[in-house]
Amino acid sequence: MTYCVATRVDQGLVFLADTRTNAGVDHVSTFRKMTVFEQPGERVMVLLTAGNLALTQSVVQLLSEPSDPELPTPWNVPNMFEAACLVGRAVRDVHRMHGSALSDFNIEFNCSFVLGGQIAGQPMRLFQIYAAGNFIEASTMSPYFQIGEAKYGKPILDRVLTPSMPLDEAAKCALISMDSTLRSNVSVGLPLDLLVYEKDSLRVTKFALIDHDNDYFRMIHSSWGERLRQVFAEIPDPQWAPVSALPEGKSPLRSEPPLATGLGLHKPVNEPALAQTLAQAQDGQAEPD
Amino acid sequence: MTYCVATRVDQGLVFLADTRTNAGVDHVSTFRKMTVFEQPGERVMVLLTAGNLALTQSVVQLLSEPSDPELPTPWNVPNMFEAACLVGRAVRDVHRMHGSALSDFNIEFNCSFVLGGQIAGQPMRLFQIYAAGNFIEASTMSPYFQIGEAKYGKPILDRVLTPSMPLDEAAKCALISMDSTLRSNVSVGLPLDLLVYEKDSLRVTKFALIDHDNDYFRMIHSSWGERLRQVFAEIPDPQWAPVSALPEGKSPLRSEPPLATGLGLHKPVNEPALAQTLAQAQDGQAEPD
Repeated sequence: MTYCVATRVDQGLVFLADTRTNAGVDHVSTFRKMTVFEQPGERVMVLLTAGNLALTQSVVQLLSEPSDPELPTPWNVPNMFEAACLVGRAVRDVHRMHGSALSDFNIEFNCSFVLGGQIAGQPMRLFQIYAAGNFIEASTMSPYFQIGEAKYGKPILDRVLTPSMPLDEAAKCALISMDSTLRSNVSVGLPLDLLVYEKDSLRVTKFALIDHDNDYFRMIHSSWGERLRQVFAEIPDPQWAPVSALPEGKSPLRSEPPLATGLGLHKPVNEPALAQTLAQAQDGQAEPD
Repeated sequence: MTYCVATRVDQGLVFLADTRTNAGVDHVSTFRKMTVFEQPGERVMVLLTAGNLALTQSVVQLLSEPSDPELPTPWNVPNMFEAACLVGRAVRDVHRMHGSALSDFNIEFNCSFVLGGQIAGQPMRLFQIYAAGNFIEASTMSPYFQIGEAKYGKPILDRVLTPSMPLDEAAKCALISMDSTLRSNVSVGLPLDLLVYEKDSLRVTKFALIDHDNDYFRMIHSSWGERLRQVFAEIPDPQWAPVSALPEGKSPLRSEPPLATGLGLHKPVNEPALAQTLAQAQDGQAEPD
């Protein structure tokens, strides 16, 4: 499995990817899922990949070295939209090459991509590209994309991330999102590729390959869980009204014992209503069919 | 969609279920997914259901009123294990009734269940029952089960829940888990059925049907998010080493421009290494095929 997350905030872009791949639980490897296309001073693009590794590696290969030298590449497309189109086209090429053979083996054509970056004189843009080659762009309302094992890490993004957040805070948010994912899914694993792109820098200035020795990530890992437990403890416990005082329509949905099926309850109880039900059930049992 | 969570702690059991069902985004309804089987003083069982509503309603119906009056019911099974078997058997009966017809329509036989409770003189037990009718039991190591839209609400359970936690704290934990799910998936919705079973009480003592007017859940909803943002702000931002100072093997994975393909870069840059690459590429372009 994989977890990748990328966010677009006003000050820049954050890209974070784990490196674990698995083909069954007994076949776990480490592959990097973040690829950087950098021409310092002119353009930076970062591609994150998730899904079938054979497919995503083929897409990266076709992007980097297209079969036809006349075809555009990430180094010469005129804008980020065209770059996203390139990824989409490469995915479709890979589908033409491998789609039907995979289908013969009942293997899903499973791959997804996040591409973000900036070309000199143009705005930063962030895209998510699907297995069909179509894509969507991040917006102020939806400033992040996740691919792979996305759900565990989504709540913190939904609660904390805003486009006006400082860039390093957005990086911190991505790391906490990753930490939650690592905690709940063993098929996502260290090391992590973290790249923080500063708007208009047009080069890679902040990058870290985060492994178990990384002090900052260890601090996040331990202090986030600990502080979460503190906050949890500080929230008051619920207070309860007696069940008998629950208003009409606010009671639990109950299944009642069958009345006339001849089945007595396991053991009689004292409640009068239930005793009556019991009596009825026993009456039923005494009746001839 | 659905989200149900149940936890078994030393002091009792917590059951929480949303009530939203949807058959497509334009067909959203409210159905209760928690059913209580109570014989006060003798036994309490609580069943949570997720999946295809037609299937889960059939299972509840078969459990409550078996077709053959000789069959056991939740009211007379001798122990909780047999009760879980009953649910499994009912699921298999429903599969026999509807499985192949659903299959003709390419509709998955999708249903899952959590059953927990206590019978007088016996321990509390908590089970998760799958669509195939097989089941597993919660343990001290794994004190909770989730069915339906489980992932968004899992991180908080993994970080906070322990079997020694007071019962009302376990209820609070379930509510926060539900709140995270509601926040990230619109197909899970209020009202919520919350039932907290106190060990050895053998009756329903704590129940709430939680809607938008519920003060406690509103407090959880607002204060959890707010405190999370506070804690987030208090964790220091990352510090960065210059990219040029990154040790060997700790750099980003880069895709380099194709050298001999005849493709120049979009715009020349000043870096000597890259300029050389460019020159090579242009040389390549000048070569005859």
